[in-house]
Amino acid sequence: MRSQFKNQLKNLNVKLLKMGAMVQEIIEVSIKALANQDLEAAKKVYLMDDKIDELELTIENECMRLLALQQPMARDLRVISTIMKIITDLERMGDHAVNIAKVTLEIGSEPLIKPLIDIPKMARLSEDMVSKSLDAFMKADIQLAEDVAHDDEAVDDIYEAIYTELLEMMIEDQSIIKQATNLLFIGRDLERIADHATNIGERVIYMVTGERVEIN
Amino acid sequence: MRSQFKNQLKNLNVKLLKMGAMVQEIIEVSIKALANQDLEAAKKVYLMDDKIDELELTIENECMRLLALQQPMARDLRVISTIMKIITDLERMGDHAVNIAKVTLEIGSEPLIKPLIDIPKMARLSEDMVSKSLDAFMKADIQLAEDVAHDDEAVDDIYEAIYTELLEMMIEDQSIIKQATNLLFIGRDLERIADHATNIGERVIYMVTGERVEIN
Repeated sequence: MRSQFKNQLKNLNVKLLKMGAMVQEIIEVSIKALANQDLEAAKKVYLMDDKIDELELTIENECMRLLALQQPMARDLRVISTIMKIITDLERMGDHAVNIAKVTLEIGSEPLIKPLIDIPKMARLSEDMVSKSLDAFMKADIQLAEDVAHDDEAVDDIYEAIYTELLEMMIEDQSIIKQATNLLFIGRDLERIADHATNIGERVIYMVTGERVEIN
Repeated sequence: MRSQFKNQLKNLNVKLLKMGAMVQEIIEVSIKALANQDLEAAKKVYLMDDKIDELELTIENECMRLLALQQPMARDLRVISTIMKIITDLERMGDHAVNIAKVTLEIGSEPLIKPLIDIPKMARLSEDMVSKSLDAFMKADIQLAEDVAHDDEAVDDIYEAIYTELLEMMIEDQSIIKQATNLLFIGRDLERIADHATNIGERVIYMVTGERVEIN
């Protein structure tokens, strides 16, 4: 029974890592679509999100089956409830990538009001946070989980800088207000993606220690 | 065993309704704090959110215990996984109310650039959606669940109107850009709150029919 459980858990972890990789990819594609004003790529993001949603349901169903059939013990229960929370966070990240794609389609082929530097940087940091938070889960590594929170501070700082810059640009030139607001929304979506990665880190700490923390 | 399960499920439902009521309250308090520029009330929102987070964990732990001890059957499994998803959505609504409070504190006592009519209207609609979506869950009522999605369209329409209005105001008068952006963020938070209620509706449909739907 126990080894069967371990095996099924291993299968779940493989799927979870796959979902994580898909989320990293959707973030990357959504930001590349924005930077290159590639509207076809932006539309692809919607399809990618559908796949992520499907995988979420698959993993969730397997978790439920595992719980019902194997009667796991306390520690295993916590692992499974952690997986169920992680997939919700990952799924929400996919939704934010769709928001980014939506804004990209709205901007269309209208020239960008500024070269995009900080937004891609936030995106890269967020992608790293996703893989780091899943790594923290796999290794049950509190230190790694806390690192994710520190990265989140860096993302917040970049967002603040973007916010200030765009606000100043709008004040100087009203003709760009619409696009500047749209870019602000994208900054906010990235900031929320990073928050979801931080949630995963906090969850890992809860799984390992039983202590609920808010690390930012 | 079965009647014990039923009893524990009933207890869970009571807690779930309580969580729903707390979420309705936090939305209301956050918007009243904004409208009255009541910074003390805005600070209270943070504490209210802590209580919501605590209740979420309590309900989640009870769900996990129930799953592990009672080995529920297929249909009951689906009810419990639905509860676990609903509490995540409710918890996220609390986070959005905190965002609203944060913006309210940032606006501080600086005069509002416009009388707030649409934002409180969105808030009221969202609160109704929360109670309607939980009602749909309790009654396993697909029709009610679909109604929530229709309400969501109304919320989206109001958000679009707010967006257009604020954008026009900013273009006319740059001195208000900062506050207008802040109000836009609040509109977006309310829109997301309504989305979470819609998620709950979709989940109820999935629970009842086994079909995954996206109703907007």
